[in-house]
Order: sequence, then structure tokens, then C-alpha cells
Amino acid sequence: MIPSEIIKNKRDGKEISKDQLHQFINGYVKGEIPDYQMSALLMAIFFNGMSDEELFALVEIMLNSGDQLNFSNYASYVADKHSTGGVGDKVSIILGPLLAAAGIAVPMLSGRSLGHTGGTLDKLETIPGFEVNLSLNEFRRQVDAIGISMIGQTDTICPADKKMYALRDVTGTVESIPLICGSIMSKKIAEGIQGLVLDVKSGNGAFMKNIDQARALGTMLQKIGTAFNVNTDAVYTSMDQPLGNYAGLWCEVKESIDGLLGNGPADTMEVTFELGTKLLIQAGLVNNKPEAIDLQKKLIENGSAYQKFLEMVEYQGGKKSDIENYSELHLPQYFDEIRSADNGYLGTMDTYKIGLATVELGCGRKKTTDAVDPTAGIEFRKKIGDEIQKGDVIYKLFNSNKTKLNSAKGILKDTYSVTAEQKQHQLILS
Amino acid sequence: MIPSEIIKNKRDGKEISKDQLHQFINGYVKGEIPDYQMSALLMAIFFNGMSDEELFALVEIMLNSGDQLNFSNYASYVADKHSTGGVGDKVSIILGPLLAAAGIAVPMLSGRSLGHTGGTLDKLETIPGFEVNLSLNEFRRQVDAIGISMIGQTDTICPADKKMYALRDVTGTVESIPLICGSIMSKKIAEGIQGLVLDVKSGNGAFMKNIDQARALGTMLQKIGTAFNVNTDAVYTSMDQPLGNYAGLWCEVKESIDGLLGNGPADTMEVTFELGTKLLIQAGLVNNKPEAIDLQKKLIENGSAYQKFLEMVEYQGGKKSDIENYSELHLPQYFDEIRSADNGYLGTMDTYKIGLATVELGCGRKKTTDAVDPTAGIEFRKKIGDEIQKGDVIYKLFNSNKTKLNSAKGILKDTYSVTAEQKQHQLILS
Repeated sequence: MIPSEIIKNKRDGKEISKDQLHQFINGYVKGEIPDYQMSALLMAIFFNGMSDEELFALVEIMLNSGDQLNFSNYASYVADKHSTGGVGDKVSIILGPLLAAAGIAVPMLSGRSLGHTGGTLDKLETIPGFEVNLSLNEFRRQVDAIGISMIGQTDTICPADKKMYALRDVTGTVESIPLICGSIMSKKIAEGIQGLVLDVKSGNGAFMKNIDQARALGTMLQKIGTAFNVNTDAVYTSMDQPLGNYAGLWCEVKESIDGLLGNGPADTMEVTFELGTKLLIQAGLVNNKPEAIDLQKKLIENGSAYQKFLEMVEYQGGKKSDIENYSELHLPQYFDEIRSADNGYLGTMDTYKIGLATVELGCGRKKTTDAVDPTAGIEFRKKIGDEIQKGDVIYKLFNSNKTKLNSAKGILKDTYSVTAEQKQHQLILS
Repeated sequence: MIPSEIIKNKRDGKEISKDQLHQFINGYVKGEIPDYQMSALLMAIFFNGMSDEELFALVEIMLNSGDQLNFSNYASYVADKHSTGGVGDKVSIILGPLLAAAGIAVPMLSGRSLGHTGGTLDKLETIPGFEVNLSLNEFRRQVDAIGISMIGQTDTICPADKKMYALRDVTGTVESIPLICGSIMSKKIAEGIQGLVLDVKSGNGAFMKNIDQARALGTMLQKIGTAFNVNTDAVYTSMDQPLGNYAGLWCEVKESIDGLLGNGPADTMEVTFELGTKLLIQAGLVNNKPEAIDLQKKLIENGSAYQKFLEMVEYQGGKKSDIENYSELHLPQYFDEIRSADNGYLGTMDTYKIGLATVELGCGRKKTTDAVDPTAGIEFRKKIGDEIQKGDVIYKLFNSNKTKLNSAKGILKDTYSVTAEQKQHQLILS
């Protein structure tokens, strides 16, 4: 195998054999293939994509490069959920405990905020004492004990992906659908899950700007899941406006707790139930969607979803009292608001820029070493289709750094339009 | 400047500013930008090409990375010739001395055989004692003294190109038209020439398979020449059959000597005169093509072109007697031939495969450390359009390694077709 010939084949649109790709990636992980040949191959993949066989080989080698969990001794169904990323998306924090309350084991590896999008880990870490950096053994022990654990990627899971991702990050090769899919799925498959539901987002606040791109992504993710014996469903949802009434850190945890207590915003709960339905049907716990919705509502009404969440918080080092008295924690020092200058209806929201405003407020990082501000966030007083009177508050924004608040306000003020005609926002796209 | 952002811009088809490209390439030469970012950029350039401004910036930085000759104190015109590479192309060895005999100064940097194509340096080195590795000072001194020198690239000319080329070679990024053009032209411009004529070859034995690709290449090369104040003409010639009656090492030197003595093959001399005409007109030594052809024929007939060649050979360490008794040198130990099984006319020649057969014989290298066999070569007894009787010799092949001879014969036997209809081969394409 001559590495440059493999690069040329990919460059010229030819398929690389499974053996060759294995040798190339394994050689790279071992340090026998240098970074400069891997980055050339990655850029050629950016332009020419990957065949299914190549993609499966990529996932396989990433998986085999590290540890994998195995729940085959479980009687209960083992499943997880993945979102392709958005603004205000706190669904994992509601859905994880809800599924666990239904008897599904949920070993969930989550991510941090990336670009303009929020990250479940950063949100969970605002719970005082909550530990997201567990070893794979601790993670496993917790799932055994209470049926759910939500942690960050460990060093021992898919180290090949870690090495390749670090290289992609500095060589302009992150934005490749097959590479994105390979990276996501290898980590999910390593969790040892039987089932997965994907929330594939499209719209102006998602990485995929339209439904066609989203479907291409979702289809590829599902194809990988199927190839690795993971039942994989996809739900396509809109990110043309933020999800829920808040985007930020602690404010999203609070909104999630509201959701678990039965007081969640309609859109957030709709996405949660839609995703949960797929897994409950996969698990054989219900026969159809109406039953799945009923079960989920019941598990919220009877408090078991919330109790499962409290159990998880305590298991991972948090205090029940902090959750119960959530309105006393992380109080922002500064507030501001943006009011409408017009009458009409909220027509559009520039969700990408809203996401950037949350980063500016302190909810995300511009570089990896930046500290986040747990008090920071934005409240969405109006969503698409809502009637607006001149002077109505559109956004309320808050944090504990006045300069950043002002700067975020500068971004936010141009992120919505008021129209004479009332528009409908379609949340679930399929 | 964030290197990954520059890579992303090129990847997404945006133009990189001159400043940014300078910083990127200079940073690379200095070792501040790592190989893996340069290889990603090079692959993105492979796919998305370069704008004129980007290309000029690339050439400028390559030029400025090393030494450049300056002949601005010369009264005579200073010029060179470049061929994009072919099989049997010994034109430089005839044209260089011929132009020098006409009073044009010729500081010629030549290359070695590359892939299936022959290299002037490898041919010249078969002249016993002939030294192609001169320093830039020695090179300059020789041009001052006798008006011509033919050497290889020195370490001090365009070191940035050298570093980038070495990386391209192992990352599948050689075959990019703008990168090829930048590499060729930076070295030519560094010679300090006023004029350049390009022999842009197309056909089954050239890197460009058709005339459209060749014109794209020629146009880009000319554009760079113009931007750097080098009068640049292009001649488009066919490489659908080898040039002349021989392809190899010493046998091509012999054929060149024949050309300088007035006994060259018609096709080789036609290309030589066509290229020479462009430079003689550029230099103002003649007014038009008929005058240019007359002058060149006269310089051959009166022996001054041949004398200039002898002068160069002696200046670079060779012996006049070896040239004068060329048929006694480098006698092959083995010969073989391929005869026609049919009557008709020679219809096509697979010039690429013929080139591979010369490499197999020992005229080129499969890896850079391979030694070449000066005695090796192929004689073309028939060219396209020639009448053929069953049993006629098509190829005569010779070298000093029986195994390689047999192996080359195996390649050669399928490189021609005999047709019932007589075809014409058009040599000069514009």
C-alpha cells in the first residue's frame, strides 16, 4: 500500500478498498502515516465523499481504536438519542430521564457547545457538583444502578476519531458529511446501544440549512446505524427558530426541569415526545405512537421522569435541593431586553445569529479555554406567528458581564422580523 | 491570519488574498505552517484551482524564496525553451546550441525523466564527463563565456518550490494545472530570461491528453510569463507518436548531434525550427518566420550550431572526440525487434506505453535511486502513416540488460496498430 496512491484514488473519485482504508487509518493512529497525508486524504474526502463501504470501514476502525461498552447481558432495551445541534435544544435533559423512567437503559455521551449551538454537557455542568467526566467503568456502573448516565466523551472511546477530529479542526475538513457521520456514529455505537433516535435539524440555526441536506445527513447516519446493528430512527425538526423559550445554560436546565414537571414549552415537549416515541416503539414497550405519547405524559404526570432526573443528578454529584430550588441559583447580575418597534406578527428569527448572541453572552466558547457564564441566556418572549404590539418585549437577555451583555444585544437586535401577515412555523418536518 | 480559515476559503471556492497566500507559503517555508495544513491547502487547490492573482502570488513567493539570475547588463537577448514533456523529445539539445549560435544567450535549467517521459539532464549526462550539477555562479560564468549552459535545478533556485513539490509528490497533489504552472514558471523566471518559448504537448504520450487541456495549460503558463515580464510564446505540438526516430538516452544525444549536423529527422527539426522561430522573432534577430527558418538552417549548414554544442560540451567537462565519434560509445549489449504481422499502414502509436517501455529498458527511473542505462533506447522504424509490409520491423529495442529488454518488449508489442487506411499525423497543432 502506497499512501499517496490511496490519496490519488480518492482524489480521482475512485473507491478505496476496505483493506487500504484500514491500513491508512490504522497507520495514521499508530503514527506511521503522517498528518500531512491524512489531511490530504481528508480534503479529498471533503470533495469526493465516501462510499458506504468506505464509511463503514471508517466507523469500524474508529470503534476498534478504543473501548466499547457491552450491554448484551441486559434485559432492558439500551438506547440513546442524538441531535445534530441547535439553539435552545435541551431535549436530551428531558428525554434521557423520561426514557429511563420507562425502563430503557440510557448510556448517553454528550457534547459541549460547538460554534453557535449549545451543548448538553455545558448545561448539565451548571448543576452544582454535577460531574460529567466519569471513567467508562463509572459510567457503566451508574447505568447498571439507575438506568441512566449522561457524561462527556472519554479518552478511551474512539481515540482514532479524537486524533482525526483534532486534525480536521485545523485543516478545514470538519464540514464533510461522511466524516461528520463517521465521527458521530462511531461514538454512539461504542456506547453499546441497541437503539438510537436522531434529531436531525435543518433551518437557519442548524448546520444543515435545508431539509434536503438534513435528509442526506440523516440517511447516512441511519445507514451506518443499520450496518452496525443499531436500530436507528430519524426525526427531522426545524431549527428556523430556537427550541423552547430559553437558550443559555442554567436557564435551559430550569426549562428542562419544567418539562420534567409537566410545565415544559409546547415545542420542546413535542420534539421530546416525537423522539421518545421512536425509542419506546423500538423497545417494544408500546405498540404505536398514541400509546407512546400517553406513556410519556403519564411518566411525567406521575413524577417518575422527574424522580429519575433527581436520581441521576444525585448519582453524579449534584444536590436534590438545588434542583428543587432552581430559581434561587445562578441569578444573573444584568438584564436587558429588546422591544418591537412595530405592530404585526413575528415573521422570522435568525437562529444562527441568536446562537452567536448566546456565545457572546457567555453560554459558549470562542476558544476552548474560554470559561462559560452559567447565569447567561436569552428568553424568547415571542416566537414565529405570535402577535406583536409596538413596545412588546421580543427578547430578554441576561448574564453577569455587562460588556458581553451589550455586545450580545448588538447582535440580537437584528435577528427577527415583524411582518403584517401571520406565518406558521412547522416544527416536525417528517 | 488563521491558516485553517485560509484553507476553508480555498476549499469553498473563495479567493485567497495575495497577503494571506504570502503569509501561508512564507510561513510554510519557515516551518511555522505545518506540512498538514499545506497539504490540505494543496488538495483544495487541486479541486478549486487558483485565480490569476493567487497564481502570481505563488510564483512571486517561490521566486523570492531563493536566488535569481540577472542578465540586465546583457546586450544580447536572453531566452529559454520549455517542453511539457514527451517521448523522444530531444529538441532542447538541438535548439539550445542553435539559438546560442544565433547570438541569443541561453541559460537553460533542465529536468530529469519524469514518469514515462524522458529528461534532458539524463540524456546529457550520457556524454562522458558532462557535468549538469553546476552552482549558479558557474552557470552564470559559462553563459557569460559561451552564451549557453544546460544544467539541473540548483538548491538555491526556488527552494519553496522544492519543499512544496516534495510534499505534493507524497500527497497526491502533483497533477494540478496551477501548481504545475507555478512550479515550471518560477524556475524559468528565476533564470533571469527575457523570452521563453513553450512546447506544449498533447496527445496519448503527453501529460495533457487533448488540445483543449494543452491550451488551458499553455494559456496559464503564458499568463504567468506576461505577469513577470517574460515574453512567452507557446507552440502546441502533438505527442500522439514519439518525436524523431529514437527514444532513450545516448541514442537521443546521437540523434541530436545528427540534427545539429543537418541530418536530423524531419519531425524533430520541424518542432525545433518552430520553437526557434518564436525566440528569434522575439529577439528581433529576424522579421518573420521564413527569415527565422532560413537563419536556423544556415546556422546548421555552416556548422556554427554544432560548434556551439561542442563548445558547451567541452565547457561542461565533456570531450569533443566523444561527440565526433559518437557511434563508438555506449554500445548496447542486447538488441531485439518487433515486426509487423500485417500489411497496411501504421495507424496509431500508444506513446504513453512506449514511454513506459523506455523506462523499463533503463532510460528512466521507477524510484529516484534507480540507475539509468545509457545504452538503452528504442528505434522507431515506422511512424504514423508509413506503409508496412508483413514482417517489417516496427521497433528496434536495445540496452545492456537482457531481462529488462524482454520485459520492455512485452510492453512494446501492443503499442501500435496497423490499419488498411493511411492516416496523417499532424505534428504542429497551431
